[in-house]
Amino acid sequence: MSAKSLRVGVLGAGRIGKIHTQILSRLGVTIVSVADPGADRAKALAAEFGILNFTTDPNDIFKDASIHAVLICSPTDQHAQQIHQAAQHKKHIFCEKPIALDLAVVDAAVKAVEEAGVKMMVGFNRRFDANFKRIRKAVVDGEVGELSMIRITSRDPSPPPVSYIKVSGGIFCDMTIHDFDMARFLVGSEIDQVFVMGQARDAEIGAAGDVDVAVVCLQFANGVLGYIENSRVAAYGYDQRVEILGSKGAVSCENNYPNTVTLSTGTSIARDLPLHFFIDRYMDAYRDELVAFVDACLNPATLPPVSGQDGRQALKLGLAATLSLKENRPVKLSEFPSGYPATGRL
Amino acid sequence: MSAKSLRVGVLGAGRIGKIHTQILSRLGVTIVSVADPGADRAKALAAEFGILNFTTDPNDIFKDASIHAVLICSPTDQHAQQIHQAAQHKKHIFCEKPIALDLAVVDAAVKAVEEAGVKMMVGFNRRFDANFKRIRKAVVDGEVGELSMIRITSRDPSPPPVSYIKVSGGIFCDMTIHDFDMARFLVGSEIDQVFVMGQARDAEIGAAGDVDVAVVCLQFANGVLGYIENSRVAAYGYDQRVEILGSKGAVSCENNYPNTVTLSTGTSIARDLPLHFFIDRYMDAYRDELVAFVDACLNPATLPPVSGQDGRQALKLGLAATLSLKENRPVKLSEFPSGYPATGRL
Amino acid sequence: MSAKSLRVGVLGAGRIGKIHTQILSRLGVTIVSVADPGADRAKALAAEFGILNFTTDPNDIFKDASIHAVLICSPTDQHAQQIHQAAQHKKHIFCEKPIALDLAVVDAAVKAVEEAGVKMMVGFNRRFDANFKRIRKAVVDGEVGELSMIRITSRDPSPPPVSYIKVSGGIFCDMTIHDFDMARFLVGSEIDQVFVMGQARDAEIGAAGDVDVAVVCLQFANGVLGYIENSRVAAYGYDQRVEILGSKGAVSCENNYPNTVTLSTGTSIARDLPLHFFIDRYMDAYRDELVAFVDACLNPATLPPVSGQDGRQALKLGLAATLSLKENRPVKLSEFPSGYPATGRL
Amino acid sequence: MSAKSLRVGVLGAGRIGKIHTQILSRLGVTIVSVADPGADRAKALAAEFGILNFTTDPNDIFKDASIHAVLICSPTDQHAQQIHQAAQHKKHIFCEKPIALDLAVVDAAVKAVEEAGVKMMVGFNRRFDANFKRIRKAVVDGEVGELSMIRITSRDPSPPPVSYIKVSGGIFCDMTIHDFDMARFLVGSEIDQVFVMGQARDAEIGAAGDVDVAVVCLQFANGVLGYIENSRVAAYGYDQRVEILGSKGAVSCENNYPNTVTLSTGTSIARDLPLHFFIDRYMDAYRDELVAFVDACLNPATLPPVSGQDGRQALKLGLAATLSLKENRPVKLSEFPSGYPATGRL
Repeated sequence: MSAKSLRVGVLGAGRIGKIHTQILSRLGVTIVSVADPGADRAKALAAEFGILNFTTDPNDIFKDASIHAVLICSPTDQHAQQIHQAAQHKKHIFCEKPIALDLAVVDAAVKAVEEAGVKMMVGFNRRFDANFKRIRKAVVDGEVGELSMIRITSRDPSPPPVSYIKVSGGIFCDMTIHDFDMARFLVGSEIDQVFVMGQARDAEIGAAGDVDVAVVCLQFANGVLGYIENSRVAAYGYDQRVEILGSKGAVSCENNYPNTVTLSTGTSIARDLPLHFFIDRYMDAYRDELVAFVDACLNPATLPPVSGQDGRQALKLGLAATLSLKENRPVKLSEFPSGYPATGRL
Repeated sequence: MSAKSLRVGVLGAGRIGKIHTQILSRLGVTIVSVADPGADRAKALAAEFGILNFTTDPNDIFKDASIHAVLICSPTDQHAQQIHQAAQHKKHIFCEKPIALDLAVVDAAVKAVEEAGVKMMVGFNRRFDANFKRIRKAVVDGEVGELSMIRITSRDPSPPPVSYIKVSGGIFCDMTIHDFDMARFLVGSEIDQVFVMGQARDAEIGAAGDVDVAVVCLQFANGVLGYIENSRVAAYGYDQRVEILGSKGAVSCENNYPNTVTLSTGTSIARDLPLHFFIDRYMDAYRDELVAFVDACLNPATLPPVSGQDGRQALKLGLAATLSLKENRPVKLSEFPSGYPATGRL
Repeated sequence: MSAKSLRVGVLGAGRIGKIHTQILSRLGVTIVSVADPGADRAKALAAEFGILNFTTDPNDIFKDASIHAVLICSPTDQHAQQIHQAAQHKKHIFCEKPIALDLAVVDAAVKAVEEAGVKMMVGFNRRFDANFKRIRKAVVDGEVGELSMIRITSRDPSPPPVSYIKVSGGIFCDMTIHDFDMARFLVGSEIDQVFVMGQARDAEIGAAGDVDVAVVCLQFANGVLGYIENSRVAAYGYDQRVEILGSKGAVSCENNYPNTVTLSTGTSIARDLPLHFFIDRYMDAYRDELVAFVDACLNPATLPPVSGQDGRQALKLGLAATLSLKENRPVKLSEFPSGYPATGRL
Repeated sequence: MSAKSLRVGVLGAGRIGKIHTQILSRLGVTIVSVADPGADRAKALAAEFGILNFTTDPNDIFKDASIHAVLICSPTDQHAQQIHQAAQHKKHIFCEKPIALDLAVVDAAVKAVEEAGVKMMVGFNRRFDANFKRIRKAVVDGEVGELSMIRITSRDPSPPPVSYIKVSGGIFCDMTIHDFDMARFLVGSEIDQVFVMGQARDAEIGAAGDVDVAVVCLQFANGVLGYIENSRVAAYGYDQRVEILGSKGAVSCENNYPNTVTLSTGTSIARDLPLHFFIDRYMDAYRDELVAFVDACLNPATLPPVSGQDGRQALKLGLAATLSLKENRPVKLSEFPSGYPATGRL
């Protein structure tokens, strides 16, 4: 079947909703309608990509029997409910991360999806980045041998507004959650224990009860040691690197740059700053992510490459990290309920 | 006016015709029809991008009064005639390089375009590459001071078939022509003299009267020294680099890679090969090139950034280089007719 | 005063003793005698560098009133006693790290040195490496602003014999001790807490009660977060890198290589392996270290740039890390006695 | 035999004489005397390295029967005569480049050396640089297959005084001569033809009849194409790079840097400038060059790795380049006398 035969509805016309809509449009998928509580936003997005319908009521999309799949790009607190509704109406689901900030809520959503027999994919776009895919390939192909260590560097150019931070669930569930998924994806093992060090360099972020610089240590079930270095601020821009050490050597990646130009003057040998933020850095990854989702929707035998269980495990790690920081102690993941289903696949 | 209001016809459904058609489609331009002597090729391309019409007769496009512009993606020996026809029918023209292999033919085509008052842009796509644009910006902004030298490295991964080489006009008019344009573009000056060294490493290419390895020396009117290093073969893939030396320092670029990953083993510190050929390397440049053409078509006051005169100057340099190789002597550009119009703009 | 006027004795003619002797010889220092329990080793080293005397009894050096300074290059378990003897005989002391594996022993040795009024320098040679000096300069000069994080990567090409590991004091007192000193040196602050994750990839090392892969988390008194990544094995060779993040940006270094050559083939873009081990990597640092020691010996007002207290602090961190691994908990440095003198200088 | 058993005299106590003296001293060679017309310079150099004798008369060295070899570090116009004198007194000769600026003079000197049966090595130090040696090894080992092209980039940070330029023999015999030797060394073939483009960016240099920016094209006897890019000025410092293309790929080197540190700020990703000039860049090469000379002096069967014939061929290329620039035409090396002996070894 062709991409055109897939009929989707988009829930949420904000920044990420626009990105996904543009990509689906270029892929030739039939976008039936876009829903957003802001009628103007929904209308504008529909107009930009020649979508025939828009609505302020997501139910118009859920109830449209011609629609095969939905993209949930709404605020986090609506994700779980929309998953339940989509599952009830037998639509495949692409849901932005995180599914929810409560493990029980996530479990219920995942259970509903599985019982409905629809497919759900969680938006961990970084798995589709060319650098990280190449690193994963090096691991899978045995190019670095048996793994010993993984380091993930993940720094944003500048922090979001404090108003956002207050409702974000904290740095570990909001920002590090991507890195937790990346760690599981690259190593191919679950994590048994986390230990966290953190600091609030920004006084306002500290007053909001969060940190903006953190190191998260990971002990994997297969013996690998991991560490994530996060910062809400990096003067030189978006910093997304990984390094893995194994028995045969190491594999690592650098940031992506807008050009390869070097300027050599009497002062320094310099190049321009890396791509500034996630939209620039991960645009190709967003596209490949949706290619995979479209493929899973069109082919009954194809599982989405990122599952609801993946979303749950990343959230659990975020909660464990939050607890470790609070109590200044290593936290075992076994302190948390194992959830539904009891075991995930990696 | 929007991209959609621009109505174009595509002449030629081969490799480069497909690339341009895909880009125009994504830009939202209205592609009215595609013409190719091979009806199947024309039909397939039309079908792929939802184009309503296709034809084996270019006249169907020239005579369609609703069409504003044409893209000439046919074989080189048809370029000039199609330019004349398009000009006669008052259509703007995007023409792949080279316009022709004969200076008088080029002059006549350029004259016809100017007299018809339509716009013509020649497909020197590399001017739109992020690396080369950044280098040009360094020159224009004075980051390297007054220029002394420019080096252009331009190597293909592997040679075209000898059958193609025999009708290509020779390496300097076929391959180096891009580098001649790049040299003029980056330095912002005309070239007074060329001197060439060449070798045929491949015996078949030599038997066809051509070379596959060449160094082309350039003396610019403004005193800058230049040199282009060409090879039809590079085992590691497409190699496209530039380095400029000026009084304040140097600016250079590296190749583009599919990822930034380094693999460190007991043998070496290694990375994957660069992007393999021009389609991968220059896809963004092809897009930005057509954005500029569409913009020039839609805005009466906007000149296309690459003119017919640019096409002529690059061809003249190709002919001079061919003569230099034949006679093993430096060749002045003044040995060639100045053409129409007498002076170009850079 | 000239280097030649400084008269030194070397205690220990093993690997590091040879290195220091060669350097002192090139610096023009007068080496009066070399002592080693192995007469052949002492004799050979003396012969190689034209040293007039050798002995199997260190007392011959301590009692020689013409000798101003000694280099203690003997096995670790003899360091403290030789420090006491040298101090008693009013000789300046250069001592290889660690001073001892027991804090009380170190305290007594440092106290003896201070009471004798002689100078002592501990052999943390990495402080004199061009890369790390440049990073320290970036910190001191404010090029990266207020510090947030430091990462130290420190990996050996291959582990020492298990027989050595058994008497080494464990990875944290033997190998990481260099990194602890580097962390204090680069950040310019003491460390309050350590937390360790470790694994024994090599079963024999595990059976000896040690680990060969470790991540050590550091919380500095000034709020900076740190982490050291150690491995006894790296297939690609000696790996010694640092990265510091601050409010104005980041500063980092790469490994050192025997050449800057890149080989581009049909397989990869590759370079040769980095300098293989510490003698190659740090030869210049060893020289500059001794230049500083000689300078401190010759100039009454000059303090050695690495003090006995620096040696004590690094050891304490090694002991804290060992405890953290054993008990899987963060360990405060305040759990250890503050020692003599109560406060160090950084 | 040991280095100590070799007794040498140094002719010339200027910059390069000091460098060689320091190196010989560290190698343990016995330096018997140093001669310089300036008694103070000779005395100071002798004192610095503990040399017992100094003189203002080179004959004191030539006539000292205990001396095995001389280092000719005097001004160029004295080289040939000192070679004749040294040969007459049966001393091995290390001579700084160039031997002379006249081919007949060089021939006579080479002939005198051969007839005397002594060894002569010319100071093309760059052959001993780690980068260039590694590139040569890649060529010899077939890592890049059959060669097609070589590019040599050779730029000084700033020009010498115009007073020096006036007596230097011109850029091609003074500066490019090193690159000519490097080209022959790396490719392993003689050169048949040169063609030169040049410009005098500095008006004073132009008035002195010389150029300060040049591109030199080389056609090798084995079909390889070469080009040397020279500049007397490079704002970022000493620039010494090579790139070779062959049928299996390419091999290239970068400049050498004082450290590997990168500073990432809000402005750029930058590193410090490369090593600034030849003394910093080539110190190890100067050492290894003298190691080879000492080895050839001590071992009857060992030929010096750089011969007088190598000096002659580089000079001839310099003269050919000078002629090419003057007449704006390619110059065949066969236009020059073949010299003595008729054929060189590479």
